[in-house]
Amino acid sequence: MSSPEIDALTQALARLPGLGPRSARRAVLHLLQRRDTALTPLLRALESVNANMVHCSVCGNVDTVDPCGVCSDPRRDARALCVVEDVADLWALDKSRLFPGRFHVLGGRLSALDGVRPEDLSIAALIQRVAAGGIDEVVLAMNATLEGQTTAHYIAERLESYPIRLTQLAHGVPVGGELDYLDEGTLAQALRARRPIG
Amino acid sequence: MSSPEIDALTQALARLPGLGPRSARRAVLHLLQRRDTALTPLLRALESVNANMVHCSVCGNVDTVDPCGVCSDPRRDARALCVVEDVADLWALDKSRLFPGRFHVLGGRLSALDGVRPEDLSIAALIQRVAAGGIDEVVLAMNATLEGQTTAHYIAERLESYPIRLTQLAHGVPVGGELDYLDEGTLAQALRARRPIG
Repeated sequence: MSSPEIDALTQALARLPGLGPRSARRAVLHLLQRRDTALTPLLRALESVNANMVHCSVCGNVDTVDPCGVCSDPRRDARALCVVEDVADLWALDKSRLFPGRFHVLGGRLSALDGVRPEDLSIAALIQRVAAGGIDEVVLAMNATLEGQTTAHYIAERLESYPIRLTQLAHGVPVGGELDYLDEGTLAQALRARRPIG
Repeated sequence: MSSPEIDALTQALARLPGLGPRSARRAVLHLLQRRDTALTPLLRALESVNANMVHCSVCGNVDTVDPCGVCSDPRRDARALCVVEDVADLWALDKSRLFPGRFHVLGGRLSALDGVRPEDLSIAALIQRVAAGGIDEVVLAMNATLEGQTTAHYIAERLESYPIRLTQLAHGVPVGGELDYLDEGTLAQALRARRPIG
């Protein structure tokens, strides 16, 4: 029924995470019925991001300035560095504003299965940053998956000769988590790392 | 943390139905990480729709051609006309392909509360279409709300002098509906319109 242009827009929106074919159709209708307040602002925002987006040459974050807003923020503690797999992880950790330092995005994780080797990730750049000095602590904030932890171990080995404190995120029961829904691995970690009360 | 451009894109996406602030952020990340396969196609599709979208001068549908694809489809029965409140209703009814005729979009419903009067809707255009002849049946497919039904009654009165069959959608138990979850109004309508079995 729709024109090819409208179908193409529906399909482009349906590929976004969180939207399926039905909700994409509703979103297209929303845009068509609100040209000035919804369609045009979205179009301008996309144009602007498309024209200006760059990968930060320091940390690998995606932003519209290089170095990115995180790297160039003078209020951040340059002595603490948090290493993450993806930009999504950087955003997730930064949203909470709990980590006061800077970040380093690896661009993936080591994976024998997918053929991802150390030289495919920005590990050399990380070692350069650490070797340049001025960093006291490196937090290895990989995902708690087999591949994430393999990557963390590899990086820990490569960094062990530098005078830095190497840390990793705590494992345990997630806040709000119910014990009988958790896997044995998480429960084992939570028990092993148990702490005195009070 | 993000640049103003990225924030603007997140906000524009968050206003789409079905996306909230969190899912909009995920969608932005998805777009940034897949510039060629996601960001550019969405941008091109939006540009194309924005440049070409028009309201159909016959029925009020939104499309990229005028008359719209529905009005200009020669396989449709020009003698049957389905009147709906919004473009969203037209799309919903047309998706099912159950109605073989054409449509007329009113652009809203009569509402004393919101100050919507008959002259604010495309009722005059509807009467012109009927007066021009060639139409045997007009289906009043308003929403089953107080305002929708008020609008249907008003239009029925305005059309009663024309030699057409005026119909409305059946009310009753929705397919898959469970009786003890339905309101009394629906149950009363379903009982009143009960049919012999077989």
